[in-house]
Amino acid sequence: MKLKDLAQHLGLSQTTVSRALNGYPEVNEETRRRVLDAARRHGYQPNANARRLATGRANAIGIVLPTDWNMLIDPHYMEFQAGLGETLMADEIDIVLSPSRGGDETANYQRMAVGSRVDGVVLSSPLIADGRIRLLTELGLPFILHGRTESEVPHAWIDIDNEGAFRHATKHLLDLGHRRIGLINGEPRFTFARDREIGFRSALAARDITPEELFIAGGVMSDEVGFRIAERFLSERPRPTALLVSSMMMSLGAFRAIRAAGLELGRDVSMIAHDDVFPFLNPDSMVPTMSTTRSSIRAAGKRVGELLMEIVEGRAPETIHELWPVELVIRASTGPVPSD
Amino acid sequence: MKLKDLAQHLGLSQTTVSRALNGYPEVNEETRRRVLDAARRHGYQPNANARRLATGRANAIGIVLPTDWNMLIDPHYMEFQAGLGETLMADEIDIVLSPSRGGDETANYQRMAVGSRVDGVVLSSPLIADGRIRLLTELGLPFILHGRTESEVPHAWIDIDNEGAFRHATKHLLDLGHRRIGLINGEPRFTFARDREIGFRSALAARDITPEELFIAGGVMSDEVGFRIAERFLSERPRPTALLVSSMMMSLGAFRAIRAAGLELGRDVSMIAHDDVFPFLNPDSMVPTMSTTRSSIRAAGKRVGELLMEIVEGRAPETIHELWPVELVIRASTGPVPSD
Repeated sequence: MKLKDLAQHLGLSQTTVSRALNGYPEVNEETRRRVLDAARRHGYQPNANARRLATGRANAIGIVLPTDWNMLIDPHYMEFQAGLGETLMADEIDIVLSPSRGGDETANYQRMAVGSRVDGVVLSSPLIADGRIRLLTELGLPFILHGRTESEVPHAWIDIDNEGAFRHATKHLLDLGHRRIGLINGEPRFTFARDREIGFRSALAARDITPEELFIAGGVMSDEVGFRIAERFLSERPRPTALLVSSMMMSLGAFRAIRAAGLELGRDVSMIAHDDVFPFLNPDSMVPTMSTTRSSIRAAGKRVGELLMEIVEGRAPETIHELWPVELVIRASTGPVPSD
Repeated sequence: MKLKDLAQHLGLSQTTVSRALNGYPEVNEETRRRVLDAARRHGYQPNANARRLATGRANAIGIVLPTDWNMLIDPHYMEFQAGLGETLMADEIDIVLSPSRGGDETANYQRMAVGSRVDGVVLSSPLIADGRIRLLTELGLPFILHGRTESEVPHAWIDIDNEGAFRHATKHLLDLGHRRIGLINGEPRFTFARDREIGFRSALAARDITPEELFIAGGVMSDEVGFRIAERFLSERPRPTALLVSSMMMSLGAFRAIRAAGLELGRDVSMIAHDDVFPFLNPDSMVPTMSTTRSSIRAAGKRVGELLMEIVEGRAPETIHELWPVELVIRASTGPVPSD
């Protein structure tokens, strides 16, 4: 049924019906109610405003941005947000980005909860023990976690198998004969980085290899930090013959460090990088092409949006635990260990 | 003055003062008023919540996203938003991203205006004649335009000199002897694309050259569209000897088309691309390095945030017209016209 038909049926002008559905103050309460009732009975698909009126929901979800690190310049977060937007835009749900100062996000969540400004929130980049789980549960604000954390409070989460991915990648490098493998990881305070390190260490342990602690490091997942860590690893003697890198962004810097050291990627040094599937960084277009562990962070964002809306509509959060497998894609940046 | 000092001065606990400043319902009205008064008198810098209570402002700005094109996957928009976020995060101002369905943004702005959910809005990607200017003015919703449009209603805008940039770049190609120059532009409905075409045509006209209409095309500023247009241009005989490209994203595709045609960039075909200064796409790192017209879109986003907050605080919008000059940076992708 179209707006036109609904208006005809009610004997009202399309303008009046549209205004009633959109909550304009010019339309009196009785007419508004008549229009909403008829729209419901005839299955008229109302727009976001009408749904706001009918459900009492904000039709908005919130994300708190820590201001000590502008997440809006982090390509990992931006890809996640693009996916989240895909779901929410189709449903005309607003996204409220709320910056918090000085590391205390409590006031932001409090504000969101008290004012009914959002129906739920998305938690990104969880720490190993993340206090936000308890806080949001106490505030009664529905949420979903992208990633995992240690918390006794039941909650919804979706994550990729970081541990399995890095175990698998390390095993592949071991099978190629590599023994000195460097790990260039994300910041150790985050669960995903801890899980990747666990996967890395467990693959080495399975072959009775003790990892060289000098060759394990982490930091902000940028080109620059990737360069700095790789440069340091490659200046050691003996140097690592392979690198496992937590982001394609870091791999760009690591690649520069390899070239700067006069080495050749895929021959002197092998590399496997985690690929969040950035549209502007295609591992197949790199020279040489990059071996990766692959999982689209945009797809994760899309799914997070879907699941959060299910929670808002009443699904029990503790029933939502999704762990996504990660592919290992071998390309030209990995080869057998070079002979000394 | 710190929270601790303020609490001591009032003879209240820090918790109570903090709760009063943050509008928690547990604190009674009289205490809240006492705390806010003292905070004001002693120049205590209150956080965003306290400012919300004191000023009656939403401390939020809005952006309407058309759902026919997910702006959240557009790197140009994302860079702009990163800059905007830089300003707003420092001031703890929320950003509300509001998707609109079916191309009609009226309901979104109406909702923002009626509910005082935002203090102002940012308009991006203006059309040549953009109806949003009149709409927002009638709604009384403060706004700033990033870009320009033809409107008789006085309003605030900030833009780069697109016309001058492309005139300058075209003139440089003419000075190198090029006569058949292709223009790979953004979508013609947007003012910035129209202005770039005007600059391009005026540089040719100044040398009495009539542009070949076959070599003028526009579209979504993606790698793929850049490839498709360049491929078509290069299949013509005689083909263009130089390309002027509206985005670094498109230049990636154009570069592939040049290679696919067995041609060499900077020798057989010259190229100048507009560089919005994406952090992941450095023209100095490309092989060959890319000549560009350069203006940071992140810096523009930052400035847009600053100016919008000035408008919200009372500055007259019609006093705000900023036109930023654009640099021409010559690198290795441009060379003299090849001899036939």
